[in-house]
Amino acid sequence: MVITIYGRCLSPYVKLVLFGLYERNVDEFEIVPINPHDPELVTNVSPFGKVPGVVIDGLALSESRAILKYIVTKFEIEGSNLMGSTAEEKAKVDMWIDLETMILHPAVMALNGHLYNRPNFYSKETNQVAVAENIPKVEKILDVYDAHLAKNKYLAGDFFSIADMIHIPPLYILVNKSRCASMFTSREHLKAWWEDISSRPSWKKVLENNTEDCE
Amino acid sequence: MVITIYGRCLSPYVKLVLFGLYERNVDEFEIVPINPHDPELVTNVSPFGKVPGVVIDGLALSESRAILKYIVTKFEIEGSNLMGSTAEEKAKVDMWIDLETMILHPAVMALNGHLYNRPNFYSKETNQVAVAENIPKVEKILDVYDAHLAKNKYLAGDFFSIADMIHIPPLYILVNKSRCASMFTSREHLKAWWEDISSRPSWKKVLENNTEDCE
Repeated sequence: MVITIYGRCLSPYVKLVLFGLYERNVDEFEIVPINPHDPELVTNVSPFGKVPGVVIDGLALSESRAILKYIVTKFEIEGSNLMGSTAEEKAKVDMWIDLETMILHPAVMALNGHLYNRPNFYSKETNQVAVAENIPKVEKILDVYDAHLAKNKYLAGDFFSIADMIHIPPLYILVNKSRCASMFTSREHLKAWWEDISSRPSWKKVLENNTEDCE
Repeated sequence: MVITIYGRCLSPYVKLVLFGLYERNVDEFEIVPINPHDPELVTNVSPFGKVPGVVIDGLALSESRAILKYIVTKFEIEGSNLMGSTAEEKAKVDMWIDLETMILHPAVMALNGHLYNRPNFYSKETNQVAVAENIPKVEKILDVYDAHLAKNKYLAGDFFSIADMIHIPPLYILVNKSRCASMFTSREHLKAWWEDISSRPSWKKVLENNTEDCE
């Protein structure tokens, strides 16, 4: 088994790939700290030059969500239900992955961009007007999540799945780096879900290991 | 089997659901021509009020890509390979679905919005500056597709899959409504792929049937 991950683990998308590997007890891999659009990446792994790209036993893939699904499938653990067991469970997993992709992720990452990336990586002042515009958008989305989580322990139902997993990297930044934890503490069901899923040992391992270039 | 589809078939996302049903030879369903954010939709089917929502034998789902996967899985046809057969094929299918979602779709739909939606649905003049900005973005993306399709008959490899299917509704608008067919005729491999996949009988049926509210 040879696993190569192209990208820097500072990226929440690279973190998602590591999360999947640790969740499946896979500890042996190489990280090649490459930047997006690196010619080697574009030619051999990722047609649009996006990171992360991975090569797993010769199979080249890009797109973190697709990579996560492949890892979780390839390194299956008996009795695990990360992908859903029935067609109906799988459909709910897919639906909440798509809702993260289309609705939560763009709104949360826009806010993270203003509150965390700009001051920390680009030495730019936070644009308070943009922050004020984005906060209500995220709050409205989190209200829907809170209502859903009042009736479901996890996003796809009563089982922890990859739909929950893909939410952790962007929400981790929101809570811990963008200092928006109050958005969670003010919503009972969202808060309980977040405390549960973000204390997953595999996620803690992502944060503890790979620290170079990671925080 | 009771299938209810909420949404108007004018929507490319509703068309994708119909495409999946026809591809699986399912002809019996009800379309409820509801608008996004309708209270009935939000309460019972689609937590964020997005169309299409569906209810299939009591299972409520939103997000057209997730709905398509469920339909194709539930109404499996022996010998069909729409989802990929091996873990590696499935990973390639997932990757090209995600590339459509993250890269092609936003760029193509932005161009469709300027060239087709604005003049036809909103009686607004086309913003030529925005068109001039968006065309090179789409051209650059199609170059990558053309290079990939020079080496692969379909997106995920040598088999037609749901990764190809999800590209058809937005690209159909680009070619036939936004009048950007020259983007395809100028790219040999993209053109051959497009002629192949868009002549699929199930897709033709989407365009021929459900014409009320559809064109």
